[in-house]
Amino acid sequence: MLHPGQTIGILGGGQLARMMALAAAPLGLKCHVYAPAGDNPAFQVSAAATIAAYEDKEALAVFASAVSVVTYEFENVPAATAAFLAERVPVLPGPRALAVTQDRFTEKSFLRDIGLGTPDFRAVDDLASLEAAVAALGRPSVLKTRRFGYDGKGQTVIRLESDLAEAWDTVGRQPSILEAFVPFLREVSVIAARGRDGDVVAYDVCENEHRHHILAVTRVPAALDGEASHAALEHAARIATALDYVGVLGVEMFVIADGGRERVLINEIAPRVHNSGHWTTDGAETSQFEQHVRAVAGWPLGSAARRGEVVMHNLIGDEADQWRQILAEPGAHLHLYGKAEARPGRKMGHVTRVTPPGRA
Amino acid sequence: MLHPGQTIGILGGGQLARMMALAAAPLGLKCHVYAPAGDNPAFQVSAAATIAAYEDKEALAVFASAVSVVTYEFENVPAATAAFLAERVPVLPGPRALAVTQDRFTEKSFLRDIGLGTPDFRAVDDLASLEAAVAALGRPSVLKTRRFGYDGKGQTVIRLESDLAEAWDTVGRQPSILEAFVPFLREVSVIAARGRDGDVVAYDVCENEHRHHILAVTRVPAALDGEASHAALEHAARIATALDYVGVLGVEMFVIADGGRERVLINEIAPRVHNSGHWTTDGAETSQFEQHVRAVAGWPLGSAARRGEVVMHNLIGDEADQWRQILAEPGAHLHLYGKAEARPGRKMGHVTRVTPPGRA
Repeated sequence: MLHPGQTIGILGGGQLARMMALAAAPLGLKCHVYAPAGDNPAFQVSAAATIAAYEDKEALAVFASAVSVVTYEFENVPAATAAFLAERVPVLPGPRALAVTQDRFTEKSFLRDIGLGTPDFRAVDDLASLEAAVAALGRPSVLKTRRFGYDGKGQTVIRLESDLAEAWDTVGRQPSILEAFVPFLREVSVIAARGRDGDVVAYDVCENEHRHHILAVTRVPAALDGEASHAALEHAARIATALDYVGVLGVEMFVIADGGRERVLINEIAPRVHNSGHWTTDGAETSQFEQHVRAVAGWPLGSAARRGEVVMHNLIGDEADQWRQILAEPGAHLHLYGKAEARPGRKMGHVTRVTPPGRA
Repeated sequence: MLHPGQTIGILGGGQLARMMALAAAPLGLKCHVYAPAGDNPAFQVSAAATIAAYEDKEALAVFASAVSVVTYEFENVPAATAAFLAERVPVLPGPRALAVTQDRFTEKSFLRDIGLGTPDFRAVDDLASLEAAVAALGRPSVLKTRRFGYDGKGQTVIRLESDLAEAWDTVGRQPSILEAFVPFLREVSVIAARGRDGDVVAYDVCENEHRHHILAVTRVPAALDGEASHAALEHAARIATALDYVGVLGVEMFVIADGGRERVLINEIAPRVHNSGHWTTDGAETSQFEQHVRAVAGWPLGSAARRGEVVMHNLIGDEADQWRQILAEPGAHLHLYGKAEARPGRKMGHVTRVTPPGRA
């Protein structure tokens, strides 16, 4: 268990690390951010920073000796990096969470093994297995690389039989997974935290709207029937417990119609604080960032109570130019990430609007 | 007007600077903290730091060239420092706020001149003028140094006629002020902000409880009759406007019984974010720290709406050892200041408890 005054090491220097550091400080904890050279806005709010490659064992060893626990803001931490650090200092969430979530096929197999529904899927290793997979799952279906995909990168939809060779080229002819196309009603997510003591706290189910494969809007609570909502929360807790997870995780789900009822299928697990949980900073008693810090510090989790109806909009690219209007809007909470340059598709910030109960 | 990406310079590296920096980051602003060597917990969350004396003109010039506006966390910024910086970059709140509030006699004279009630007062420059002042104001009365007093330092209560020489020694035989003793019912404060455009936004009146001259507890809203509450808010706005103030200020007041009604007298103006406003981080739509940042950046002020009934307890000295219990208490918001050592009387943190409407 950490004590105030100790230091959390964070791998990655982007907005998630930055918001973790901003949440750690009020708890009396320092942050040391480790990231390769580049635009690392987390450095602006951290007590210490290391600029080095994730493969630099000398730098990693010095970093490990300077911190009391290591966490990360992205799921693609190289396994060798995590293993090297874990020999020296606790790395949380643990190596199993990384191993499972870095590979889409391993992840979906894990979900199936613990009894949770996902879109049907097949491993694809070559054009022949792609043909067999399409024959099994039908069209349309979605071909995704097993590793290193995010925000729609490394994936393509197969609609026509003639698409197969092109699709295989699109994903770079690397180990992939074919997923059945899900005619979902809507997309939701659950942000949950699990403490070192096994306690799980989840926020209310979030409803997400993507544009160009990037999260655009999150609304809480989600429009979802009670039973499906209950199931979504239970699924997230089951995943966290099965992974012996410590920290915050985001579980993305599809809502489908199943007879007259709604049912959730799990799309993806993010072993980290999650964009669809950004609303918690202004809209919940404890932010997902504070919750994550509490968990990895070995502290009790905080209350996930919501402060009202919440809508979070991402500010993508030049949408961040709206900062003046947002500042002038009563009750709008602006969050800018301190990035040097606004490129198209780049997450530059977000704005959260909370309608307290009784003021709707 | 500042733009996101620009830098705010802050004089002073303590908890107030630290909480300003934590509030500036989500608005996309960087902070550069300037402070003499020592325990400067604001450095832990700031993009840049300068360790130098306030008289070091070379360091001040470099600092001024690195920031877009300068503000401060304490009222005793040397006048020469403020003037030197103000030739190079805007210093907000402005020099008039510092000049008025650095000297208790000047401050009370200013308040009287703009028509506001204070405890009766007299300047004291020697033992003879102290005798005359005590004859005029009666006993008990309070002798305070005109400059550099805080948390009860540099002041003494005169109860007996024989106390005079001793009291004059106690304040160090320096220019002082004698204030009539006020048999107050309670102590309150108003935290208000004034923007560069002259707009004033005030939070609800706070009720404060001091122990050993240090703020112990703030409760919001204050138990105060409607007319007195209205007057308190108006007084703070009048002060801010008369000083052409930009930023957040705290106005400490005494509540006295006046016939059958309550009336407020002004005790002190703090030209900065104020301990009795710390509750706003968890208990209001916009924290006093964000409000201050918005003001000095030339941006619109945020909503001061309250989220419920709020109680803030300071954690003084070893009271900060309660952090474990506080973390385990649902709805309690812990704030530790990252100070290296817990000395008796030292403000180490605070905890805020908010009871939302309808849950009381």
